[in-house]
Amino acid sequence: MNITIVGLGLIGGSLAIDLRARKFGSEFWGVDSNEHHASKAQELGLVDKIVDLEHLNKADLVILAIPVDQARNLLPKILQNINSQAVVVDMGSTKQGICQIADQLPNRDQYVASHPISGTENVGPEAAIANLFRGNVTIICDQEKCRKYALELIRKMYKTLGMKVIYMDPKDHDLHIAYVSHLSHISSFTLGLTVLEIEKNEKNIFNMAGSGFASTVRLAKSSADMWVPIFEQNASNLSKALQTYIDNLIHFKKLIDHLDKTAMFRIIHQSNEIRRVLDGIELKEKANNGS
Amino acid sequence: MNITIVGLGLIGGSLAIDLRARKFGSEFWGVDSNEHHASKAQELGLVDKIVDLEHLNKADLVILAIPVDQARNLLPKILQNINSQAVVVDMGSTKQGICQIADQLPNRDQYVASHPISGTENVGPEAAIANLFRGNVTIICDQEKCRKYALELIRKMYKTLGMKVIYMDPKDHDLHIAYVSHLSHISSFTLGLTVLEIEKNEKNIFNMAGSGFASTVRLAKSSADMWVPIFEQNASNLSKALQTYIDNLIHFKKLIDHLDKTAMFRIIHQSNEIRRVLDGIELKEKANNGS
Repeated sequence: MNITIVGLGLIGGSLAIDLRARKFGSEFWGVDSNEHHASKAQELGLVDKIVDLEHLNKADLVILAIPVDQARNLLPKILQNINSQAVVVDMGSTKQGICQIADQLPNRDQYVASHPISGTENVGPEAAIANLFRGNVTIICDQEKCRKYALELIRKMYKTLGMKVIYMDPKDHDLHIAYVSHLSHISSFTLGLTVLEIEKNEKNIFNMAGSGFASTVRLAKSSADMWVPIFEQNASNLSKALQTYIDNLIHFKKLIDHLDKTAMFRIIHQSNEIRRVLDGIELKEKANNGS
Repeated sequence: MNITIVGLGLIGGSLAIDLRARKFGSEFWGVDSNEHHASKAQELGLVDKIVDLEHLNKADLVILAIPVDQARNLLPKILQNINSQAVVVDMGSTKQGICQIADQLPNRDQYVASHPISGTENVGPEAAIANLFRGNVTIICDQEKCRKYALELIRKMYKTLGMKVIYMDPKDHDLHIAYVSHLSHISSFTLGLTVLEIEKNEKNIFNMAGSGFASTVRLAKSSADMWVPIFEQNASNLSKALQTYIDNLIHFKKLIDHLDKTAMFRIIHQSNEIRRVLDGIELKEKANNGS
């Protein structure tokens, strides 16, 4: 099976490592508009050959691992160019926009819309690592619109990567992911910015910041190329999520200004409930690293 | 040397582990108003004996590892009860309040105001771990107000723990720490709360949240008993920090509402600058874990 990966960054590169190691696919080709990424990916052995989009008709499986706006723009051309037995899957963090485009295309049933919940804040082919996906959840949307073989192949691919597949409506996906992923990124970008604005002397940050600060702003290292298109495509859900977050922060600030300790205790105890969820995620990660 | 630790939680317990292992002090006594913590700390071998505040006159070194409001309230009584050669040090995350109290006390020079930048989001004596402090920075305030012997003892204690000592004015300490530590905690508590409010069905959070979400809300597990007094004592600095953070979030929301991708790119690139600081913190942590 020829697997052609469009986008040889963290996600595309990590997919290549695991799929090759587990013998899912015999030939790995890569497409990347960034020449440095393309040659680096080949140098690292992530792909056997760099090709351009015109060669997609040789692929049995095309994986789109590019920013969500590019995936949306390329999907029509890709579905037009592939052979009639091939399958296309995307990895994007927003699903409503691309699913709407797909619905207008004649060979819609060769495309599977998906979103593996995995990543790090690092970018480019050098950031690719083994087992990035193992133990995590992946979401498939509009599965009833895929031909049977396409859905089965993608399910098999995710099982090979060690992921648990769940199914969601694209609209629901985008709503929930706004809160549990996209909002965290804005919170982190903005926190990083706030601290950099105030602490012109970075030595203070370096000396006084502990592991707690590092943890909350880690995502501020994430790539603008990846995230701006996500924020754009999920703007409406994200705007609501941000407003709720801002309202909660304004409320907390009022409690601090009024030194209302009782209410602060109540809010923190409510927030501590997240412990149950986090302990579950940690267990999942430990099982993952340990296996 | 008898070391009496007041407060046998994460910080007090972790101090006991390292100081004992490195033979700094021969006898470790503990004080804790929470009976469960006191007996647990003794059971875990963190301290040899549980005593009450009336026994502080036996101590050569008294370490206050309790919430900042309690440290502030207890300091006068403690400085009154200790013997004339003893030294008292506190570990609190705010320094201006306690230093002001100390300035009014007759034996001010037996007290060293400090803040080791170390911790985890876990609480209680069971959370105590070895090497919690190693490789991190600790801050000493108003060092010129301490008698020479007291300052030397505390410097030696921190060196024994593997910490780098820096000196700051208490007012400066509280201002900077508001941005690089306290603000992160509010950002995290509020993010946890926002997501819990929307996602009544925690299964969605659990399935869809990845390591990025876990990282940004990890601090939401932190203890209200510790943090409410910190927020109260650093209210004025923190209120300003929060306002700047809120303003930046409101600005980001506007960019999303207007789909202003150019400005989003610019802000994210600015925020990415935090990478330099974070890479430094990571190196510090790696050196620490590897040594």
